[in-house]
Amino acid sequence: MELWFSEFHAPDVKHSIKVKRHLYSETSDYQQIDIFETFEFGRVLALDGNVMLTERDEFIYDEMITHVPMSVHPNIRDILIIGVGDGGVVGQLTRYKTVERIDLVEMDPLVLDACRKYLPENSSQLNDSRVNIYFDNALRFIRRCKEEYDLIIVDSPDPFGPSEGFFTREFYGICYNALKSDGIMVNQQGSPFYKHDAEAMKRSHKRIASTFPVSRVYQAHIPTYAAGYWLFGFASKKYHPIDDLNVEKWLALHLTTQYYTTKLHIGSFYLPAFLERMLEEVEQSC
Amino acid sequence: MELWFSEFHAPDVKHSIKVKRHLYSETSDYQQIDIFETFEFGRVLALDGNVMLTERDEFIYDEMITHVPMSVHPNIRDILIIGVGDGGVVGQLTRYKTVERIDLVEMDPLVLDACRKYLPENSSQLNDSRVNIYFDNALRFIRRCKEEYDLIIVDSPDPFGPSEGFFTREFYGICYNALKSDGIMVNQQGSPFYKHDAEAMKRSHKRIASTFPVSRVYQAHIPTYAAGYWLFGFASKKYHPIDDLNVEKWLALHLTTQYYTTKLHIGSFYLPAFLERMLEEVEQSC
Repeated sequence: MELWFSEFHAPDVKHSIKVKRHLYSETSDYQQIDIFETFEFGRVLALDGNVMLTERDEFIYDEMITHVPMSVHPNIRDILIIGVGDGGVVGQLTRYKTVERIDLVEMDPLVLDACRKYLPENSSQLNDSRVNIYFDNALRFIRRCKEEYDLIIVDSPDPFGPSEGFFTREFYGICYNALKSDGIMVNQQGSPFYKHDAEAMKRSHKRIASTFPVSRVYQAHIPTYAAGYWLFGFASKKYHPIDDLNVEKWLALHLTTQYYTTKLHIGSFYLPAFLERMLEEVEQSC
Repeated sequence: MELWFSEFHAPDVKHSIKVKRHLYSETSDYQQIDIFETFEFGRVLALDGNVMLTERDEFIYDEMITHVPMSVHPNIRDILIIGVGDGGVVGQLTRYKTVERIDLVEMDPLVLDACRKYLPENSSQLNDSRVNIYFDNALRFIRRCKEEYDLIIVDSPDPFGPSEGFFTREFYGICYNALKSDGIMVNQQGSPFYKHDAEAMKRSHKRIASTFPVSRVYQAHIPTYAAGYWLFGFASKKYHPIDDLNVEKWLALHLTTQYYTTKLHIGSFYLPAFLERMLEEVEQSC
């Protein structure tokens, strides 16, 4: 028997991964959750049929969404993570001894349960004493927070369906208010390649750029995401992602990484001409 | 009816593109040649079932394999291109008025015929008076050349099957001899992500690094290639790809590009940690 998991990266483009075993399949109050054991990518978590992470390439996402802000802000102690509670992002953040508190807000307890059971290595750092897990609606949760966090990481699924609320102007405004006066917000910003993704990315960038004084986009190669080409948003009240990068300080931490380097950090903000033009167009209309 | 063209990016990973029409299918003396009309990627050229180019994303490949060396070397006049004669690379090079001669060596006349007929925009610059087309075995062709070219572009298919000869130590030695004393060779260097590709990339990098005094690798996002993540090799007798980049001179040419920028040029050499380690390992064994 051959079993393949396919995801449409665009209406006429399909990415398929050969499956060893379908380990888990449940419908929660919010979404369809599946975990596959695959030949090439190890275990794969899919929500509503979209790959959220694979054991083989999730290091790229996790490292890029965490080490970029952590190497720029001089003193991150209080962190809020909104989104998929698989633990990969928490795993990177708990490597920093100076971090005092990581609040993780996940809407769906079933995702966390499934990850704890089927991606135990991935979710092991969720037990770190600095981590607080809240099963709540993220908008409601953050609305109560005022100048509380140094860093907010919006680690949400794509801006379609149940996660659409994480890509609105209102949401970014609430995040702004929840950040201290020198806080940083980093979010997954989708892909610029296929038209549907690019439109969503532009909308979301426009909203962030009109909310934060500093708003830049950076990129990474993530093979299992659409077009293998993924973007992150870096929004900040004060710090610039390149000018304020503290290379010596980060290197002195001696953190071994598989993807992130301080040089790649800089390079990830040097974008293709077509994407620069997309972003400029959006920024001019802010 | 639904018609899909699928390519295995790895034995257990498949990339599929929905096809409008199968426009062309011939078996030449060397390979199977197909051209598809697709919904998302426009026309697609496949050799032996592997995507060589699509109208939608080939600008990335063409711009990165040409403008990187063109913006580093101060005076490129004589160029040799080895490989797929679709005309995309020639199209970029003919934009430089200072280029005097472009010799294109293509093994298979049928590829050129098919491209001329089905990718006319792509191959239109093949008629530029500076372009000379040779239907020949590239190894035999170059062996006759001594210090003749400023730039050699190895625009070949992957190092498996009929193109394997373009990835040998002997081949790189012949290219070295065919270059003037400050010449540059650029080649497509495969993908570092899937194991089979990564091994081929390391072998080829080792051979280049032990032939040329300067040998660096740079990257680009190419959605239809394996893992969406592609590498190029920059090998040179004299010039360094970043230190010798002449930003002002290149900007003064006012070439409009879709992917290449001089900033992205620099960033494309800042590689992920896992790839840096792969390359260092190889370089230490040279």
